[in-house]
Amino acid sequence: MSYTAPVKDMLFAIEHLARIDQVAQIPGFEDAGLDTAAAVLEECAKFNEGVVAPLNVVGDEKPSWFKDGAVTTTPGFKEAFSQFAEGGWQGLQHPADFGGQGLPKTIGAACVEMLNSANLSFALCPLLTDGAIEALLTAGSDELKATYLEKLVTGEWTGTMNLTEPQAGSDLALVRTKADPQPDGTYKVFGTKIFITYGEHDMAENIVHLVLARVAGAPEGVKGISLFVVPKFLVNQDGSLGARNDVHCVSIEHKMGIKASPTAVLQYGDNGGAIGYLVGEENRGLEYMFIMMNAARYAVGVQGIAVAERAYQKAVQYARDRVQSRPVDGSVAGSAAIIHHPDVRRMLMTMRAYTEGCRAMATTAAAAYDAAHHHPDAEVRKQNAVFYEFMVPLVKGYSTEMSLEVASLGVQVHGGMGFIEETGAAQYYRDAKILTIYEGTTAIQANDLVGRKTARDGGQTAKAIAAQIEATEGELRASGTADAQAVAQRLAAARQAFLEVVDFIAGGAKAHPNDVYAGSVPYLMLAGNLVAGWQLARALLVAQELSAKGQDVAFMQAKIATARFYADHLLTKAPGQRDAIVHGAASVTALPLEAF
Amino acid sequence: MSYTAPVKDMLFAIEHLARIDQVAQIPGFEDAGLDTAAAVLEECAKFNEGVVAPLNVVGDEKPSWFKDGAVTTTPGFKEAFSQFAEGGWQGLQHPADFGGQGLPKTIGAACVEMLNSANLSFALCPLLTDGAIEALLTAGSDELKATYLEKLVTGEWTGTMNLTEPQAGSDLALVRTKADPQPDGTYKVFGTKIFITYGEHDMAENIVHLVLARVAGAPEGVKGISLFVVPKFLVNQDGSLGARNDVHCVSIEHKMGIKASPTAVLQYGDNGGAIGYLVGEENRGLEYMFIMMNAARYAVGVQGIAVAERAYQKAVQYARDRVQSRPVDGSVAGSAAIIHHPDVRRMLMTMRAYTEGCRAMATTAAAAYDAAHHHPDAEVRKQNAVFYEFMVPLVKGYSTEMSLEVASLGVQVHGGMGFIEETGAAQYYRDAKILTIYEGTTAIQANDLVGRKTARDGGQTAKAIAAQIEATEGELRASGTADAQAVAQRLAAARQAFLEVVDFIAGGAKAHPNDVYAGSVPYLMLAGNLVAGWQLARALLVAQELSAKGQDVAFMQAKIATARFYADHLLTKAPGQRDAIVHGAASVTALPLEAF
Repeated sequence: MSYTAPVKDMLFAIEHLARIDQVAQIPGFEDAGLDTAAAVLEECAKFNEGVVAPLNVVGDEKPSWFKDGAVTTTPGFKEAFSQFAEGGWQGLQHPADFGGQGLPKTIGAACVEMLNSANLSFALCPLLTDGAIEALLTAGSDELKATYLEKLVTGEWTGTMNLTEPQAGSDLALVRTKADPQPDGTYKVFGTKIFITYGEHDMAENIVHLVLARVAGAPEGVKGISLFVVPKFLVNQDGSLGARNDVHCVSIEHKMGIKASPTAVLQYGDNGGAIGYLVGEENRGLEYMFIMMNAARYAVGVQGIAVAERAYQKAVQYARDRVQSRPVDGSVAGSAAIIHHPDVRRMLMTMRAYTEGCRAMATTAAAAYDAAHHHPDAEVRKQNAVFYEFMVPLVKGYSTEMSLEVASLGVQVHGGMGFIEETGAAQYYRDAKILTIYEGTTAIQANDLVGRKTARDGGQTAKAIAAQIEATEGELRASGTADAQAVAQRLAAARQAFLEVVDFIAGGAKAHPNDVYAGSVPYLMLAGNLVAGWQLARALLVAQELSAKGQDVAFMQAKIATARFYADHLLTKAPGQRDAIVHGAASVTALPLEAF
Repeated sequence: MSYTAPVKDMLFAIEHLARIDQVAQIPGFEDAGLDTAAAVLEECAKFNEGVVAPLNVVGDEKPSWFKDGAVTTTPGFKEAFSQFAEGGWQGLQHPADFGGQGLPKTIGAACVEMLNSANLSFALCPLLTDGAIEALLTAGSDELKATYLEKLVTGEWTGTMNLTEPQAGSDLALVRTKADPQPDGTYKVFGTKIFITYGEHDMAENIVHLVLARVAGAPEGVKGISLFVVPKFLVNQDGSLGARNDVHCVSIEHKMGIKASPTAVLQYGDNGGAIGYLVGEENRGLEYMFIMMNAARYAVGVQGIAVAERAYQKAVQYARDRVQSRPVDGSVAGSAAIIHHPDVRRMLMTMRAYTEGCRAMATTAAAAYDAAHHHPDAEVRKQNAVFYEFMVPLVKGYSTEMSLEVASLGVQVHGGMGFIEETGAAQYYRDAKILTIYEGTTAIQANDLVGRKTARDGGQTAKAIAAQIEATEGELRASGTADAQAVAQRLAAARQAFLEVVDFIAGGAKAHPNDVYAGSVPYLMLAGNLVAGWQLARALLVAQELSAKGQDVAFMQAKIATARFYADHLLTKAPGQRDAIVHGAASVTALPLEAF
């Protein structure tokens, strides 16, 4: 088996960190308790291990193929996608009203991770469809919802996000695609969009593009951008497919990784104009797009966890099999499997700790999302929304950055074999590199964290989280074990470093923006590191308790060892990061432009 | 121009850090002063920028090709290699007796960097030939020297290193290739060697394989390995080429990067035995091979610096050209080139500081090599040898690990374009990943640093280097500038961290080998970081002095800014690394094997 879903670890996080019992008390989620989670995850594991994972290497070797305006996906993808749709996996987190299963994100996120571990390229199609569904649910008219939602939720059709243009990447103010209003209330869309994931493919009969464009006379910049639905095929009144719309794929990119996922250049309106339907109101497109993007950013963070998990599994397998050199402690007389060597253990533990730490962080964030959107108490909703919003850049930014390190270590564990493509470890290294870039680079996530999430409320949210962490430190100290003490010490040092940085960021964002933004990514990395380490510290407390009760002792002891490793080896980075941010800001921009 | 050799920075390091004036006082190097260095580097830059660099992308797109036992290299490689040989570049550092130019490594290393920046794949062929020359110079009989050396030094023939077998990678004790003594004093060699760089190609008329094998009856393990010369074509008495030897390429690898460089599987003796000639004495092969490897390890470290330099140049160019978003400080009204954004500056400064820091370290190490090998005073030779030996794992391990981070940042600066192969940034990311693996993985370098270089002398060499660093701190404090003070503070903290780790390593290597080796790679990273930061601190002192004299002020100010950035952002990692090594050893191996 090339991938075994870590169902047990996921359920541990869902039960003990995200507290699924509390999620299941929210009206509408009454049936979504631990038993449901376990049943869904088991089923999901079976599907992804059996159907999707085996296509991962195939996709790398036989990427999507463009010819005469059409994209042919990797052999097997179309059939697997049918099974995915039939299994109801696209609709897992979407409302039952439109054919979904209405499960909480707390459960859904684990399924997203499995799909992405199985096949990052394949999983991108549903990921983008999820974003389109979110946007339509939030801002679409009843007519648009009636026409498109069920087809998207059931996986009959797929969705895309069309933001980027050659001159407009991170900077959406530069979007030039235009939309001319027509007498019948529709718009004609003209322009070029690039980097459109699954912008063209053969896995579904229709593709629903969500497109940012400017209506004539709209204000300059981001305040003049509107959002449109532009279907590949127009939809007749009875829901059947009508004429081909004037949107065409003119090429797909030749990429370093996620090769099976077609990245399209789409040309709108070369033959008279692509018919588009306004989503919500004119000039509020960016706002709606942010809804899609927030969902997608979280999901890309989960992609980081997913590829890290798979890289870890592959490395462990190789380290068990590969026999090379005697252990330094003399525990084996001859050459031993390399997993006996301390540095291989260090690499594997690093991979494991990062992955479990980020999974714990993402799962807790998912529970906050569920409460933020569905809890009956407005105050609880608000608190959770604020927490979740703070978590999104961390889940996206930190989990993807860590996935680069993990994928690189994965190759390293394989030695020379890791550099040979047939081994498979290199694919994760190549695939992962897109994750720190798309749906907003790490720097864009960090800007969000600095500006909207930290400076805007004067660091209040950040400090509230630090207070929660401090409470965990207290519990660790009270528990009295050596592991808990050591973790408490590292956590406290990291939290204090974080607080100093928060003061630096919140205090200086207006007066010294260059200094503050010079530390934006390091701040994100420090914050992500702290929160992931904190969640593993919480896990350690639970694991100690359950282990003492004799419950699943080996698993619980492994969780304790992993949390301890995280604290010793990763949380220890925090004070140095603080020094660089707080005392090193000036040297980031000291070199004059002409000296580079 | 896709690559501009950083001649000025190289000459700065050669003149002020490596002190070429002192190297030129060594007998034999009288003509190798600064003027010679400048002249050679200018010429070398011209050749590499004009001839070799343009072939880098070509090699990635059209890798070496295997068919029917023959390897056809990338179009243009053969011609470029002829020019390389004719230009005398292969013989730069080799003795004039055999057709070389006998220049010091202090100068030669800069040329090696240029060649590798221009084209990592191309440069590997000369790199391996250098290793073969070293081995023959050290241990070859007069006859072997007479037959092979001049041809190798002039670049007419090329050399290879044949260590690895499917079951024997890092663990050479497992080598099985055998060598049967023949009545005429030659040997017949039988076996399979893998991962043989340029093991077969069409760029030279003969290939001289240096092969590890066991003579029948030799002791088990590494003490029973001998070294043989096995030429692709036998050589007649008059030096002309004779019969084809029984060594054949059966396939080449499909790799993630350095695709133009053919990585061969070589089969020895399938048709009666490949004729081999013993190098030196039987069973001393590993010792000789270490000579080659030490040269190659240093050179691979330089490869890391080289690919980092090129990734940096490409990123700077893109950051100047790409217009996206308004600067946070409002310094530009509309969208600006992304080099105006603090996080892009942070990335570029990180790339620059790492590259210049490692270049400074490698150049200083090269001067120690020259003194160690050629200084008339035995005591000076010894001191320098000890210093150089300590530097080899740092140059190899740290410079290559940093190159991964730099190449990854290079892609990141390009955003989505970085992930598109045609942009070129991705190639460096793929290419660089082999550097932490071949010629001994980072873990192997770290074992060397821990065992042979630190524990064996009780940390004496390490502490002597720390004392030199402390002296530099004193000079920094005395200089009185804010930059120098700040650098002194970071350097002192890093040095103290290093010393604590040295005590931990030297004190525990025998009693607690697992704990010590669990921290081996982090120790290497800490030590490399410290030494690179130290060399930049020395550079800062020189630059302050020269800048005050009005000499090349812009360059000197840039050097100061880079050194300050290094101290603020990279040296600040050291205390955290110490904590992980000294207090986190147990958690590396705490997880039982079955729990992975």
